[in-house]
Amino acid sequence: MVSKNQQKKIIQLKQKKYRSKFGLFVAEGEKVVNDLINSKIECEFLFSIRNISHPKALKVKESEMKKISHFKNHSSILGVFKIPDIKLNNRNKLTIILDGISDPGNLGTIIRLCDWFGLDQLICSTNTVDCYNPKAIQSSMGSIARVSCHYISDLLTYIDLINKPIFKAEINGTSIYKNQLQEYGTYVFGSESHGISEELKSNIKNKIGIPNFKKHNGAESLNVATSVAIFFSEIYRT
Amino acid sequence: MVSKNQQKKIIQLKQKKYRSKFGLFVAEGEKVVNDLINSKIECEFLFSIRNISHPKALKVKESEMKKISHFKNHSSILGVFKIPDIKLNNRNKLTIILDGISDPGNLGTIIRLCDWFGLDQLICSTNTVDCYNPKAIQSSMGSIARVSCHYISDLLTYIDLINKPIFKAEINGTSIYKNQLQEYGTYVFGSESHGISEELKSNIKNKIGIPNFKKHNGAESLNVATSVAIFFSEIYRT
Repeated sequence: MVSKNQQKKIIQLKQKKYRSKFGLFVAEGEKVVNDLINSKIECEFLFSIRNISHPKALKVKESEMKKISHFKNHSSILGVFKIPDIKLNNRNKLTIILDGISDPGNLGTIIRLCDWFGLDQLICSTNTVDCYNPKAIQSSMGSIARVSCHYISDLLTYIDLINKPIFKAEINGTSIYKNQLQEYGTYVFGSESHGISEELKSNIKNKIGIPNFKKHNGAESLNVATSVAIFFSEIYRT
Repeated sequence: MVSKNQQKKIIQLKQKKYRSKFGLFVAEGEKVVNDLINSKIECEFLFSIRNISHPKALKVKESEMKKISHFKNHSSILGVFKIPDIKLNNRNKLTIILDGISDPGNLGTIIRLCDWFGLDQLICSTNTVDCYNPKAIQSSMGSIARVSCHYISDLLTYIDLINKPIFKAEINGTSIYKNQLQEYGTYVFGSESHGISEELKSNIKNKIGIPNFKKHNGAESLNVATSVAIFFSEIYRT
């Protein structure tokens, strides 16, 4: 059974302010919940329609699951997890910075890409959508259990600190196919609608991009997650 | 003003059965609507909060727009367009087949990718989501005006007919980086959850895929739109 208090809290966790207040987030669906259970992230509650063996598991009715789910179509399992306190790792060769990404589906897809290509962290501007947003978690397909997102307010100082070759991804930049993209580097991707913020943009000289193969009257831009995918592929292709 | 009849029809067009019945679809947002107006696709009605000069334009109040929009957050402009009758073009070097893609956001993103890489058509199985689904149109970012989707029930016969080298995209396939991906070819991508249908799969011998760069405990798969992006990049990179 889900208590009234639990129900209230889970619904509140849809909002970032409550996730920050309680230090908790919600994940739904077998794949994501299993990946989180098998990670270092601590499980607070686990609600399941079916019988499962887990010390935190509680069996609930479908009608109860419907009430606590953050989605229109609920899953068979919902977990409440503690937001982990993961230290920034500055030893990685590759750094990906997301600046102002607002679509949680895009963020989740990029987290999944990091996991596929073996990158364990992602640097985000503070106006990038929260990685514990329900839709970001869903589209990460469990990769949120293995990739940490770090929200950094002063990105310019951070960039100076890690001190690696830095590139901004922009339309009309030098073609990414011209020179082999280096793994030892920092790559900055801007928001879907506004691109990279002016402050950051003016401080990064190297502009690179995916050439538009249709010279006239084609798409004006690519979705940010598909751009990141192509960059990853170019960095790691062998 | 929006008449009661128009309002009813526009709301009905959220559903595929009414889009098929009336031969119409709805597009919202300045970018998408402008791209459609500037294409060969015929405009039936145009509703705008602002004054615009177009023979089919009608100025409406924000409260009216709210009522007809297919989205929670309405745009300033909504157009109703005729579903075009575009002939299949079998002369393209490259053919992309989507088999059972159910997420409209993914379909729209793939339409946008086709447009970026200069491909004017996409072949879809009949159980792939409708390209005139509101979310597919939205995520195509106007590319739906330039890329046509053809839904083919007997894909095996179609594949035989176009008679090109054919590849199925699968995890654990031969690395796409091993040999240059040919533009003259057919590439088949399966659904997000079930992969390529058994019938199609058993009839295609060549299995290729994006290698997983994290050998242990990483993401199990990639989002289909990001996979298509990487394939496009490998086909066209120079």
